[in-house]
Amino acid sequence: MVEFKVTFFPDNKSVEVPDDTTILSAALSAGVSLNSACGGDGVCGRCRIILKKGRVVTQPNGRISAEERSRGVYLACSTSIHSDVEIEVPAESRLELESLSPQDVELRLKGKYAQAEEVDIPVPGLVDGIFSGVPLVEKISVALPQPTHQDRVSDLERLYRAVSRPGQASVPLLTGLSNIRRLGELLRAADWRVTVTVNWREGSREIVAIEPGNTENKNFGFAFDIGTTTISGQLVDLNNKKILGTKAVYNRQASFGSDVITRIIYAQQAEGLEKLHHAVIDTMNQIIHDLAVEHGVDLNDASGVTCAGNTVMIHLLLRIDPAYIRREPYVPTANTVPVIRASESGIKINPRGLLYCVPGVAGYVGGDVTAGVLSCGLDREKDVCVLVDIGTNGEIVAGNRDFLIAASASAGPAFEGSGVTCGMRSSKGAIQKVRLNRESPPVYETIGGCKPRGICGSGYIDSIAAMLKAGILDKAGRIKDGADERVREGQYGREYVLSYREEADADSDIVITESDIENIKRAKAAIHAAAHILLKHCDMDFKDVKKFFIAGGFGTCLDTDNAVILGLLPDIDREKFIFVGNSSLSGSRSVLLSEEAFRKSGEIAGKITYFELSVEPAYMDEYMAALFFPHTDLNRFRGAL
Amino acid sequence: MVEFKVTFFPDNKSVEVPDDTTILSAALSAGVSLNSACGGDGVCGRCRIILKKGRVVTQPNGRISAEERSRGVYLACSTSIHSDVEIEVPAESRLELESLSPQDVELRLKGKYAQAEEVDIPVPGLVDGIFSGVPLVEKISVALPQPTHQDRVSDLERLYRAVSRPGQASVPLLTGLSNIRRLGELLRAADWRVTVTVNWREGSREIVAIEPGNTENKNFGFAFDIGTTTISGQLVDLNNKKILGTKAVYNRQASFGSDVITRIIYAQQAEGLEKLHHAVIDTMNQIIHDLAVEHGVDLNDASGVTCAGNTVMIHLLLRIDPAYIRREPYVPTANTVPVIRASESGIKINPRGLLYCVPGVAGYVGGDVTAGVLSCGLDREKDVCVLVDIGTNGEIVAGNRDFLIAASASAGPAFEGSGVTCGMRSSKGAIQKVRLNRESPPVYETIGGCKPRGICGSGYIDSIAAMLKAGILDKAGRIKDGADERVREGQYGREYVLSYREEADADSDIVITESDIENIKRAKAAIHAAAHILLKHCDMDFKDVKKFFIAGGFGTCLDTDNAVILGLLPDIDREKFIFVGNSSLSGSRSVLLSEEAFRKSGEIAGKITYFELSVEPAYMDEYMAALFFPHTDLNRFRGAL
Repeated sequence: MVEFKVTFFPDNKSVEVPDDTTILSAALSAGVSLNSACGGDGVCGRCRIILKKGRVVTQPNGRISAEERSRGVYLACSTSIHSDVEIEVPAESRLELESLSPQDVELRLKGKYAQAEEVDIPVPGLVDGIFSGVPLVEKISVALPQPTHQDRVSDLERLYRAVSRPGQASVPLLTGLSNIRRLGELLRAADWRVTVTVNWREGSREIVAIEPGNTENKNFGFAFDIGTTTISGQLVDLNNKKILGTKAVYNRQASFGSDVITRIIYAQQAEGLEKLHHAVIDTMNQIIHDLAVEHGVDLNDASGVTCAGNTVMIHLLLRIDPAYIRREPYVPTANTVPVIRASESGIKINPRGLLYCVPGVAGYVGGDVTAGVLSCGLDREKDVCVLVDIGTNGEIVAGNRDFLIAASASAGPAFEGSGVTCGMRSSKGAIQKVRLNRESPPVYETIGGCKPRGICGSGYIDSIAAMLKAGILDKAGRIKDGADERVREGQYGREYVLSYREEADADSDIVITESDIENIKRAKAAIHAAAHILLKHCDMDFKDVKKFFIAGGFGTCLDTDNAVILGLLPDIDREKFIFVGNSSLSGSRSVLLSEEAFRKSGEIAGKITYFELSVEPAYMDEYMAALFFPHTDLNRFRGAL
Repeated sequence: MVEFKVTFFPDNKSVEVPDDTTILSAALSAGVSLNSACGGDGVCGRCRIILKKGRVVTQPNGRISAEERSRGVYLACSTSIHSDVEIEVPAESRLELESLSPQDVELRLKGKYAQAEEVDIPVPGLVDGIFSGVPLVEKISVALPQPTHQDRVSDLERLYRAVSRPGQASVPLLTGLSNIRRLGELLRAADWRVTVTVNWREGSREIVAIEPGNTENKNFGFAFDIGTTTISGQLVDLNNKKILGTKAVYNRQASFGSDVITRIIYAQQAEGLEKLHHAVIDTMNQIIHDLAVEHGVDLNDASGVTCAGNTVMIHLLLRIDPAYIRREPYVPTANTVPVIRASESGIKINPRGLLYCVPGVAGYVGGDVTAGVLSCGLDREKDVCVLVDIGTNGEIVAGNRDFLIAASASAGPAFEGSGVTCGMRSSKGAIQKVRLNRESPPVYETIGGCKPRGICGSGYIDSIAAMLKAGILDKAGRIKDGADERVREGQYGREYVLSYREEADADSDIVITESDIENIKRAKAAIHAAAHILLKHCDMDFKDVKKFFIAGGFGTCLDTDNAVILGLLPDIDREKFIFVGNSSLSGSRSVLLSEEAFRKSGEIAGKITYFELSVEPAYMDEYMAALFFPHTDLNRFRGAL
């Protein structure tokens, strides 16, 4: 078989590939992470590379302009290799795994997550005493009485007796054969003083590990939110319930597509499911490893991992084919997955430690929503409240202690900076706050305070709201001709220049196009319509909502007034809006810290009624009516402008 | 390294071994099973072989006479190989694994076990309705409704919903990740008609397997009694609760020692535990394989195995070091072991099938006793009853529905034909029934009706009782000089010739020596004293016992009058004696056929108080007093002679 050498610059990484391999596939093999929002379908145009040397064959693609072609620009997914080649990967085509250096992580945390942490609601059990204080993993140090003729129960029963807690007689204690095999010798070598690690598991308590001596003070766990775009993990000291560290990194699955649908499709390819599975596990292991090293934690002292994620993410995490979630009637293989050994999924903590997934509700309402409800306490509220989690999908839950109902609106990735011309994730260089003043150039603020590289979700909301207020944009989302000197006709239609190339760290001007605005409008319409329909289904309106929880990385630096101007958030008393940051992560942590919370999460998942919008005729009418800033029915937004 | 070729005849099996390897070890490698009651310590003298060719070095050993040495007889365990050698293995030195041909199995079953089956008490659940009818493994065929927008629970919940039984809401249903991973595709490929195999497991129901179509009618299980000497297994149809077949074969561990103590010692050697573990697993797999082939059962349709055995056997089965059972205060590592996957221990049934061990009570009162109590229903009796299980250890349980107390007396292997001059297991050629008449030669009956090869336990009891009645033997166990023409002075003291060499299938005359009688006397004294002390401890006497259950392969062809004459059984109304055969096997089967019986076995094990005879001062006095035929206190045996 003919093999060619492919070298990627500036990484200077090489790989040998067979004739006719795509550049995207070669990049994956070489460990160069290319942006590929559509999963390699030639649609998103994100995987642009520049051919420096060698022969390739490419599919015609409208995404590449004549000027670009003359510079040697190709889409990596649609171009195959037919000689040794040298390829330049521009910064904007990268998945930016390199931004995971400690400094960059910190920067992103400041930009995107630091605020989330500030407004992160506290672990319920710690504050309001609703959950009992027993974490999913306990370490119990025991000094066993030595056997005598008067007390000759077996070694195992002696251990069980010591570990049993009053009031837990009905909870069976179990352990595995490998621990029993070591037990006799271990107890005697340790002079009958050992520390057992006890995990809650499906109505039982399982002794997962037995160590000599007293190691009670070393008991750690990891709580995760598995997002489609970002994976966030926390290292928690289970003894004092303190968060030792938090890391948020890109989900490496992003190389295979930016949303759950493209990933489900990718999973159908040969080895596709395995690759997606390994990508998420590798990302989690990276967070686990980094946090452990940073805080001097031996991973043998970590015997519990909790995960909250959308249903597709949890399927991929466990290497369960998510195919049927995409097909009517959108049924997942499992909403509640059993507690398994973390090692069975490839997660590297104590080899006998357990993985707990927060149960989900439906194919498009996952454990992240359950965790969010748990974390916000929606299920304990007397009055009706709403939780909106704005991500690639927008999930909405309405209800109180008597009922809970949820829907999922496919907002699309626009709010996460995908599918929009100069969009980017809320990382270093992203414009996140914007003010316009007709007399002077736009005033903007970037994450990290550096030169702008693109626009993130909240930057778009601020920009569009400002353009509306300044009269540059009409309520239908059309940019008015001649309304501003920065308005011009671009390659893809009319656009507004937020930042000229020379002030920016970009190859071209940073612009907002009518097509971008259309994307944002559709996303906000989908979310608004979904929330409206859900409340109407319960014979209510937004004004009946007592608290309006806003979750998601997105929401934490959101200007609520501007979000109302767009019609993304309803026009209600602004004091009702409560930012809860990454409620999936805090719910995941609640579960790790309280077995009662874990049980509660199962009850919540069972209590949430899933409402399928796609079969609700009124939804399309509501959606169409919401394709206007803020809405065609201005009565709903009297306080907006 | 120098290697020599060793060839064993008449097998004609060869093996290459390093210089200085023992013949016993070479035989094990070659797959030639030698008798080795003492585990290779040069004590039992059972592993005699004849050197035909080659050079060996042997340890001096009193077990080999000058005449034998001149014929080239050596002990395989104490003789090492120093050239290529050829070795003849006489029939009496074999472990007789070859007797497992179908014909031979049948013969042995007729001799030893056929009667056991006849008197085997029925499964309690089937007869008296005490146990619910749900076996530990159920196969449930379901036709699931296809998901619709109105009914869109996940595949797994859909399956759980169909498998749930009314009234079992509190019993969690579980399954493993491997089943979930296959579920989505399987359900659709099978058009939503599948059969699930559901096993009871530690308070839950676990779906261990999911198959397309309806295979409900194929649901099998295996019940085992793991004896020190013999392993018995039954193939059971779990649907109609019929026993399809029974096999009893020698425990291959016998090559490493005949009693539990020698095996515990052997387990301390390098690889010793592993070898013992594999020996018992291989024996079980042989039974499973043979029964499955005989009855056309696919082992994928067998998802449950139950085992009852003494505590040491269960430790070795699970590869748990039994070392501490031998050390004061004789504490096992575990009396109750968790339900594990059968494959984890090496047992070859359905790869996800489960292994259930009947819980034991103490180091020397194991799950076989628990199973015996369950099977006899001792725990449900109003009046006090006794169960005696006579094996290498004699276990005694006394009690009723209010209390249960048990002790273990180390009877030694004499009743199983070990440690006595012409003793043999109750297999083909064993003298099992004897009558003496001063006027004519002894009348005896052998198993299989062939020429005698040795004497089994019941043969010894009959012989000794007859010798007592005939005045050949006095009550202290001394053979009277000149009392009979068959009495003579032998190499090891005075002896009685039961069968001359020329009438027998043996190298020498079949004799009963004073030393043999001493062994039997000690064994019966140990059992009688233990039973007496146990009853006394409860302020009772044998006359207060309502039913006297006799269990063990031994007991099934026992002449009770003769056993009373020896003082092995108490002198009570003979109608109170109830033969229950292999009560450990029938208890094991009850458990397999009823999850309620399995739970009950745990309750029974918890209810039995273990009584340690070795720390009871009166036991030694009672034992000494019983070293007489039938007893020094003749008042106890007024009806004996």
